[in-house]
Amino acid sequence: MSELAARTKEELLALQKEVEAEYKGYQEMNLALDMSRGKPAPSQIDHANAMLKEMKDFHTKSGLDVRNYGLLDGIPELKELLGELLEISPDQLIIGGNASLNLMFDAMMRLYVFGTMGEKPWGQLEHVKFLCPSPGYDRHFTICETLGMEMIIVPMTENGPDMDIVEKLAAEDEAIKGMWCIPKYSNPEGVCYSDETVKRLANMKTAAPDFKIFWDNAYGVHPVFEDIKVLNILDECKKAGTDNRPYYFFSTSKITFPGAGVSLVAASPENIGEIKKIMGAQTIGYDKINQLRHVQFFKDAQGLREHMQVLAGCMRSKFEIVLDTLEKELAGTGLISWKSPKGGYFVSVDLLDGCAKETVRLAKEAGVILTGAGATYPYKNDPKDSNLRIAPTYPTEEELQQAMNLFCVCVKKAGIAKLLESK
Amino acid sequence: MSELAARTKEELLALQKEVEAEYKGYQEMNLALDMSRGKPAPSQIDHANAMLKEMKDFHTKSGLDVRNYGLLDGIPELKELLGELLEISPDQLIIGGNASLNLMFDAMMRLYVFGTMGEKPWGQLEHVKFLCPSPGYDRHFTICETLGMEMIIVPMTENGPDMDIVEKLAAEDEAIKGMWCIPKYSNPEGVCYSDETVKRLANMKTAAPDFKIFWDNAYGVHPVFEDIKVLNILDECKKAGTDNRPYYFFSTSKITFPGAGVSLVAASPENIGEIKKIMGAQTIGYDKINQLRHVQFFKDAQGLREHMQVLAGCMRSKFEIVLDTLEKELAGTGLISWKSPKGGYFVSVDLLDGCAKETVRLAKEAGVILTGAGATYPYKNDPKDSNLRIAPTYPTEEELQQAMNLFCVCVKKAGIAKLLESK
Repeated sequence: MSELAARTKEELLALQKEVEAEYKGYQEMNLALDMSRGKPAPSQIDHANAMLKEMKDFHTKSGLDVRNYGLLDGIPELKELLGELLEISPDQLIIGGNASLNLMFDAMMRLYVFGTMGEKPWGQLEHVKFLCPSPGYDRHFTICETLGMEMIIVPMTENGPDMDIVEKLAAEDEAIKGMWCIPKYSNPEGVCYSDETVKRLANMKTAAPDFKIFWDNAYGVHPVFEDIKVLNILDECKKAGTDNRPYYFFSTSKITFPGAGVSLVAASPENIGEIKKIMGAQTIGYDKINQLRHVQFFKDAQGLREHMQVLAGCMRSKFEIVLDTLEKELAGTGLISWKSPKGGYFVSVDLLDGCAKETVRLAKEAGVILTGAGATYPYKNDPKDSNLRIAPTYPTEEELQQAMNLFCVCVKKAGIAKLLESK
Repeated sequence: MSELAARTKEELLALQKEVEAEYKGYQEMNLALDMSRGKPAPSQIDHANAMLKEMKDFHTKSGLDVRNYGLLDGIPELKELLGELLEISPDQLIIGGNASLNLMFDAMMRLYVFGTMGEKPWGQLEHVKFLCPSPGYDRHFTICETLGMEMIIVPMTENGPDMDIVEKLAAEDEAIKGMWCIPKYSNPEGVCYSDETVKRLANMKTAAPDFKIFWDNAYGVHPVFEDIKVLNILDECKKAGTDNRPYYFFSTSKITFPGAGVSLVAASPENIGEIKKIMGAQTIGYDKINQLRHVQFFKDAQGLREHMQVLAGCMRSKFEIVLDTLEKELAGTGLISWKSPKGGYFVSVDLLDGCAKETVRLAKEAGVILTGAGATYPYKNDPKDSNLRIAPTYPTEEELQQAMNLFCVCVKKAGIAKLLESK
C-alpha cells in the first residue's frame, strides 16, 4: 500500500469505508485475547516442567541441606553457573528471590534510607531525578513514581540511550542520581547497546558522586533471531574506575518460571559488601531449594544456553507473524514504523502522532487487549501518543495472527481518521 | 545440690576442683555441636519431604497457572488455608516470599520512606524509638539497629511484656513509634501473652498516632507440650478502634522448610490497601508454585495442625532432655533459674549476674556453640549479662544430652568462680 498521507480526501474516505467494514467483521468474531504483558506462553513454560519433578537430593556439593536456614547470598553452585553464564565473578553476585524487580526496588529503598558509600540518603534530599531512556519498561518507571522521583525522558537510538544527552544531563545536575538501562534486546524496542554506549556510560562524568546505573539485563540470554554481544557494564566500569556505579540485575523469570525463578544482583565488591550488610537484616536467606532445583535442571551454563535455544524456537515464529503481518498490511502506508528486534520479548511500533491511544481503544473494543498506550513512557505519558508495545509471546500462533490482523486494521482506522483531520 | 552461695570459701574451692576435672573431661571429648540458632533438625524437616515430590498439577482451583506471572497477594487457596488456621479473613492477608523476617523489614522500610496513613515518614524524623520486650529475638533488634532506631528495653513478665511500663512509655513519648511482640511461645522464654496483655496492647493510648505493633506470631501453631490460646491482636484492635495499629506476621519456616516456606502479613483492610499499593511497585508477585505446593501438601488447616502434632512429637523429648538435665544438675544451686515453655523453640535461662558470657565462652572452648550471650537483648547487650537462650531442636538427642551435660558444668564453673569473687 502506498503512502496514505499523499492521497486525496475522497480516496481516504473510500479507504475508510473499506477499513470500517473489516473492523466490523473483527468485532463480530468476539475475540478475547490478552497481549498486554510479556508473558511466556504455557507451551513455552512447559519446557521447564522437569523442574517440577521429584527432587531427590537436597544437598549442595559441600553437603549443605538447602531445606534449612542460612546462606544469605545463595548456594555456590548457582552462583558459579550464573557467574559463568554472565561472565561475572561469583563473589560479585547475590542470588535473590523469585523476582529481579524486587531486588531493584529493594536497592532503591536502601539508597533512600541508607544512602551509599557515606553519601546522604536520597530520602533526605529535596529533589531526586532519574534518567529514563524511553520507550522503556513501565515497572521501572513505577518504582521511580512510587518514590516521588522526577523522571527525565532520554530518547533511545539504535545504539542505546542518546549518550550526548545522557552525558550532558548527568554531568550538569547533581540531583540526577542514576538511570535505568535494559542493555540487551531492550523492552520494548529490542535495542542492544553498542560498545561505545556501554563505554560512555562507564566513563562519563556525573555531578552526583553516588550516580547509579540500574542495569536490568532482563533479556541477557534471550535471543530470538541472533545472539548479540553486549559489553558487561561491571567490567567497563572497573576499567573506568567507576566500579561502584552499576547495579546489575538478572533473573530466570523468562528462562524457567515467570512466577518462580531465581534472581540476582551483581556489583562491585564494595557495593556487594554494602548490600549484604543491610540484606542481612532483611532476610536469613532466599529460597535455596529453588536455587538447587535450577542447578539440577540446567547442570551448567551451557545447559541454560541450550534451553534458551529451545525457547527461541518457540518464539521465533511468533515474532515472524508480527513482523510479516506489519510488513504485508502496513509497509509503505506511512502510518507506522517499527524495528525488527533480534531477541527479547517485544516489538515496538511508532504510529502517527496522536494515534496510539485510539489504536489501543479500537483493539480493545474488538476484543484484543494491548499494552496500554503511554505505558512505555514515564508517568504513562507518551508525549507524542505514538509508541505501542506488541507482546507476541503469550497467545498461540493462530490467536496471534488474528490479533495482528486486527491490530493492522486498527492502525489503519486510527491513522486514516487522523489524516482526514487535516484534509 | 544445695544453694552454693551459702557455702564457705573452702567448700566452694573444693567443688571448683571437681567441676574443673569434669570440664577437662568434656574438653577431651572434642565435641563439635552448634546450638546457636533455632534450626529444626534434618530428621524433623524430613516430615515435609513429600513437598519435594513431583508436582502434577500447577493450576489453582480457578484455573490459574501458578508458573506464570501475576497475583500479588497470593493464591486464594493458600490465603483460605492460612486464614482459617489463624482465624483471619483471607482478604486481610498477603502471602509473601520465603521469610516473614523479609516482610517485617520491608514493612519497616515502607514506614521509613512513605510513612503510613498520611503521617510523616519515619526517615524524616529526628528520633525514632521502638519498644523491645526483652529477652527477645535478635533479628528484630537487628532491624531496629540497622535503621538507627533507639531501642527501649521493656521487661518480660509471665503474661507478656510488662504492660504498666508499655502503657506509660507509649502514652508519654511520641517518638516511640511501635513495639515488637512475639505473642505465643515467645523467643526465647516461651511466654504466651495473657488475654489482658493483648487487650491492653489494643486499647492503650499512644502518643504517636502511627504507633505500630509488629506482631510476630512465629510460633503461633507450634505447641510442644500444650496448645495455648492467645487472643488475635487484629480482632482486639478492631474492637478497640485501633484497627491500623498491628501488622501481623507468620510463616511456615518452622512448619515446612526453614529456607523455603511461605510467609504472610495480615492487617486491617486499610493497612492492606496501603501495603499492596507499594508492594505492587516492588514485585509482580511472590512464588506461587511454592504456595500451591504448600496447599497440595497440607490440603487444609486441619492437615497443617496435624503436621504440627507430628513435629511436636519430634521436639518433645529434646525439650525434656534440656529441662530434666537442668533440674537434675542445677536445681537448688541458686546458679540458674529457667522457665518451662509449653511450646516454641527455646528454653531461656537466667544465670548469676555477669555469668552469661563466661558460660558461653566455656562451652565454646569445649566444642559447643551456644547462642551468644547478650543476643536476646537490644544492641546485643544484656545489662545483667545473665540471660542465655538454649536452642534444643537441631542436635540429635544424644548430642543434645552431651551438650546439656557440658552446659551444666559450664554454668557451675562460671557460677562458682563468680561466687568466689565475693568470698
